[in-house]
Amino acid sequence: MTLVDNFNIVTFKVIKCKAAVAWESSKPLVIEEIEVAPPQANEVRIKIVATSLCHSDLYFLYESLDKSLFPTILGHEGAGIVESVGLGVTEFQPGDKVIPLFLLQCGECRFCKSPKTNRCEEAMKRHAQKSTEHSRLTCKGQKLQQFMGTGTFSEYTVMNQMAVVKIDPAAPLDKVCLLGCGVCTGYGAAVNTAKVEPGSTCAVFGLGAVGLAAVMGCKAAGAKRIIAVDINPDKFEKAKVFGATDFVNPKDHNKPISQVLMEMTGGGVDYSLECIGNVECMRSALESCVAGWGVSVIVGWTDLHDVATRPINLMLGRTWTGCLFGGFKGKGGIPRMVKAYLDKKVMLDEFITHNMTVDQVNDAIELLKNGKSIRTVMRFSPQ
Amino acid sequence: MTLVDNFNIVTFKVIKCKAAVAWESSKPLVIEEIEVAPPQANEVRIKIVATSLCHSDLYFLYESLDKSLFPTILGHEGAGIVESVGLGVTEFQPGDKVIPLFLLQCGECRFCKSPKTNRCEEAMKRHAQKSTEHSRLTCKGQKLQQFMGTGTFSEYTVMNQMAVVKIDPAAPLDKVCLLGCGVCTGYGAAVNTAKVEPGSTCAVFGLGAVGLAAVMGCKAAGAKRIIAVDINPDKFEKAKVFGATDFVNPKDHNKPISQVLMEMTGGGVDYSLECIGNVECMRSALESCVAGWGVSVIVGWTDLHDVATRPINLMLGRTWTGCLFGGFKGKGGIPRMVKAYLDKKVMLDEFITHNMTVDQVNDAIELLKNGKSIRTVMRFSPQ
Repeated sequence: MTLVDNFNIVTFKVIKCKAAVAWESSKPLVIEEIEVAPPQANEVRIKIVATSLCHSDLYFLYESLDKSLFPTILGHEGAGIVESVGLGVTEFQPGDKVIPLFLLQCGECRFCKSPKTNRCEEAMKRHAQKSTEHSRLTCKGQKLQQFMGTGTFSEYTVMNQMAVVKIDPAAPLDKVCLLGCGVCTGYGAAVNTAKVEPGSTCAVFGLGAVGLAAVMGCKAAGAKRIIAVDINPDKFEKAKVFGATDFVNPKDHNKPISQVLMEMTGGGVDYSLECIGNVECMRSALESCVAGWGVSVIVGWTDLHDVATRPINLMLGRTWTGCLFGGFKGKGGIPRMVKAYLDKKVMLDEFITHNMTVDQVNDAIELLKNGKSIRTVMRFSPQ
Repeated sequence: MTLVDNFNIVTFKVIKCKAAVAWESSKPLVIEEIEVAPPQANEVRIKIVATSLCHSDLYFLYESLDKSLFPTILGHEGAGIVESVGLGVTEFQPGDKVIPLFLLQCGECRFCKSPKTNRCEEAMKRHAQKSTEHSRLTCKGQKLQQFMGTGTFSEYTVMNQMAVVKIDPAAPLDKVCLLGCGVCTGYGAAVNTAKVEPGSTCAVFGLGAVGLAAVMGCKAAGAKRIIAVDINPDKFEKAKVFGATDFVNPKDHNKPISQVLMEMTGGGVDYSLECIGNVECMRSALESCVAGWGVSVIVGWTDLHDVATRPINLMLGRTWTGCLFGGFKGKGGIPRMVKAYLDKKVMLDEFITHNMTVDQVNDAIELLKNGKSIRTVMRFSPQ
């Protein structure tokens, strides 16, 4: 208790810092000075050192029609250092390197206790609440929401300890920040959800960071053949780096891509991963799988339309499933992935096409929107 | 060779026998005298002793718009005795008790060699061919097709040895004929495809023979709670016999059935099995599953519409799959199920609501169409 009380004395102050604020939908972010209140009980205040930009940030910024979700701080791929902790926090102390989790883990519910899922009842409860309730961030007298509960486009952020994971002090934060979402999402979809088997044939639809990570996951799992599918052939070279063996541009064919893959593989792939977030591509990915045992995993996010197929495509023994965050439980999974990176068993540097400071966040957004970047890592202060 | 040649001498004659012929779509069947040619190489001529009527027969009779599929002999749940064998047949001899398989097994292809599926490349090849090519049945000078490759509504039928399985001589044919389709389809969907775990909660949509068999499969797998769903409450009593613990009539509720099941189970069932063949029910069955690990299996047949859901319902960790013939490989699976019946580990008698002769086949059709029967077993000659 002395230790905790001691921290509280030191840290019970509001921090003024820089953040990129999304004041409203579809508008450029604005760099502002914001106030970050001290952590309350069970909370951790984190100095974000590096953060990258993910398609989900863009999806939210441009597709969210609900005005009540703004103003918000975007960003959910971040890494930082614990600045202070609230009462009751025993797992963290100032100076710890951490990654914020957009999928928190209470550790107590039936989902947290099951090895089958990374879902958490507490996370669902919080998801249903208005996110200002837990936010300690304000700007010009207005509470700022934290997108996905994280809001890493702020130099400081406050999060419940359920939503933070400690990582190896040796980890370079401007690299491992990628493990906060995209890389784990794609890699885990292959190894945890699809459970790709050695010697198998896989197809990955969409070669953004998530798709490239899925390619890397397929390779790590021992896939013999990895077919990379994208309408932007500029992505193929990068996909090769991560392990893709075949490259298909749907624009080069005047028949359905599922038929092209069926013909290339003599009946369909063993596993397909949709990393775009387009319901037609999800259907194609399923229908590209071999009847009998093909598994198709939905990884790309969209909630605008239904996904559909003929029942026979499932009755012939295909399996359709999906995951969030690659099925990883963040508290265990991220440290394992950090270790794999430090052991040179997973690549991260290869995803990073641009390095910037947060002041340039709107440039980073333009690059990603136009397919000109894979990942832009932003720091709050120049290195 | 002597033995085989000897059989050929004995059996190279055309048999005239009774059959129920479907001359055209949506019309009553007609009892006719037909000719059944001798078995050719690798073929087996079978005297069908008992056959039951399945919904797929009705589906084909009433929903098939393709006139070229008629005239045909319906029936694919049959059991009989080998009458004669063609050249090259070593697995069977006259007198063997057998069940015809609508899903044949060549035993040689990559699917037959995989434990993951009951699909077979040879079966697919034959499915793509005009079915008169393999039929030895004629009536009034016209070739008769064999529905699903079997055509058990004929006193004699000829099938390739890949599509026949030998069973225990102790098996009563007027009971085990049910293992030719419906009972294996439902039971296997639970134990082979869903892989229901002990202590789990299951929901079965549709309480025809397939659904009841699915209930029995869930119970055999150790499910703690089995929720039987049907709009015909007359089926609930029977479902209880097979192991159902809870009964839901969607007509009793003015909210979606998935919501009803979510509330009954505190978040959704672990496994759901759709045994109706209705795409809206397939969607409900999926969405009744608990997010995180719920598995929904499509068992009921339809090919008229797409099945659909929001991607998030899969991304939250639900799995959507399906099977034909309950995922059983007929050659191994049916003898195991026959043994389980003889050992009183699976029920068959309880499915049989009516016994008739084949002359009454149109009465049997009316009973099934109107939900008044579960299974009607028909014999060619009175017992």
